[in-house]
Amino acid sequence: MQRWKATVSYDGTQFAGYQVQPGARTVQREIERSLAKMHKGTSVRISASGRTDAGVHAIGQVVHFDSPLAIVAERWQRALNALLPADIRIMDVEAVASDFHARYSVEEKEYHYRLMTGSEPDVFRRNYATHFPHPLNHAAIQEAMAIFTGTHDFTSFSSARSEVEDKVRTISMFKLETAGDELIFKVRGNGFLYNMVRIMAGTLLDAGQGRIQPDDIRSMLAEKDRSTAGKTAPPHGLYLYRVTYK
Amino acid sequence: MQRWKATVSYDGTQFAGYQVQPGARTVQREIERSLAKMHKGTSVRISASGRTDAGVHAIGQVVHFDSPLAIVAERWQRALNALLPADIRIMDVEAVASDFHARYSVEEKEYHYRLMTGSEPDVFRRNYATHFPHPLNHAAIQEAMAIFTGTHDFTSFSSARSEVEDKVRTISMFKLETAGDELIFKVRGNGFLYNMVRIMAGTLLDAGQGRIQPDDIRSMLAEKDRSTAGKTAPPHGLYLYRVTYK
Repeated sequence: MQRWKATVSYDGTQFAGYQVQPGARTVQREIERSLAKMHKGTSVRISASGRTDAGVHAIGQVVHFDSPLAIVAERWQRALNALLPADIRIMDVEAVASDFHARYSVEEKEYHYRLMTGSEPDVFRRNYATHFPHPLNHAAIQEAMAIFTGTHDFTSFSSARSEVEDKVRTISMFKLETAGDELIFKVRGNGFLYNMVRIMAGTLLDAGQGRIQPDDIRSMLAEKDRSTAGKTAPPHGLYLYRVTYK
Repeated sequence: MQRWKATVSYDGTQFAGYQVQPGARTVQREIERSLAKMHKGTSVRISASGRTDAGVHAIGQVVHFDSPLAIVAERWQRALNALLPADIRIMDVEAVASDFHARYSVEEKEYHYRLMTGSEPDVFRRNYATHFPHPLNHAAIQEAMAIFTGTHDFTSFSSARSEVEDKVRTISMFKLETAGDELIFKVRGNGFLYNMVRIMAGTLLDAGQGRIQPDDIRSMLAEKDRSTAGKTAPPHGLYLYRVTYK
């Protein structure tokens, strides 16, 4: 058995999310189905760095799997891409030690959230960036990002459905970039709770519109109550950009 | 009655092309359906600068229509966009004289053809640029573009199904641009025959790979025979970029 690490890009538009669920087209199902074809019908389970929701995209999702097949990395990539649908691409495959785990070995993850700010949404990006044509104060957003940065209990910024116990996470980078008519929020951290990036994005939009003061985020964090934070921003602006490992 | 000129952008991916055809989702059908709603069910016919095929995109398609409604340009745009599906957007509406015709008044049209050149196709652009990972000689492509430029009989570069009699057209601009990992062919002219841009794009790719010499295009033009030219490049790399009027 050899353990393999694969870096995967997918367009989330036509998926019911990453994780297998009965009767739904999911990323995990498509990859496992392609692996099963390569293993003459034997099922091969993959483990990802984490799930992504319906509509959320990935540029650098990471999964691992074990296989008895004697195949080199480049052939894994070519063979899987030949079997996978066009909205999933394997960008890289490498052999890893048997104790590597796509989820438990994560050092940091980086997410990007794209907003297109023109008055009319660009048809070509309607599934790839959230349309937000209202004026935004960039300095207020940056101030709010600085408050999120560091180690905090993010209970207020996670879905009430989140099941993990420990909600303390560390954000090491949070920045605003502009590219053409787009604003991009880039955030990196050692872990993210369910919906955390989208709730932070919604709260940053509140700060950018002056609906809250950046400083209000301190009390939201302290309250540990989802209802104090902003709305969950739509999924189609969100990208799992990169996962790094120890 | 007032005649209106509308500039329309659409993502061609989920359309069977521009023109109405029975049982098919087309751009014309969607726009006429939205106009009929605004006219309490009365059908309103639109005329476009020309058709686009299934999968072909538009950034600046132009249509015109006549209406008895007393509505200002900005309201037309807002009302139509509220009724149209998300893959069609009205970018501009203006009142025009009653002798304006979206097709017959055209001065020039500009098309862009996008190629993504990375080894793996980017999942997010799979419907928006043609994947072409093979090496291309840019100088040869530019030489070929220069030969296409000017006034020629383009019979060899139009679908055998083309029904127009006069196949002489003038190309006023043909250039190659690069943007990130993309190559973009930009062509402007006083008119284009059926499939002409896609056949020229396919022939430019032949020149770029050294399968033909740029000079061979002179004899292809002289032959007036579709079988002498290159393949028709796929539709999803093609954009109707702009239409200008006298």
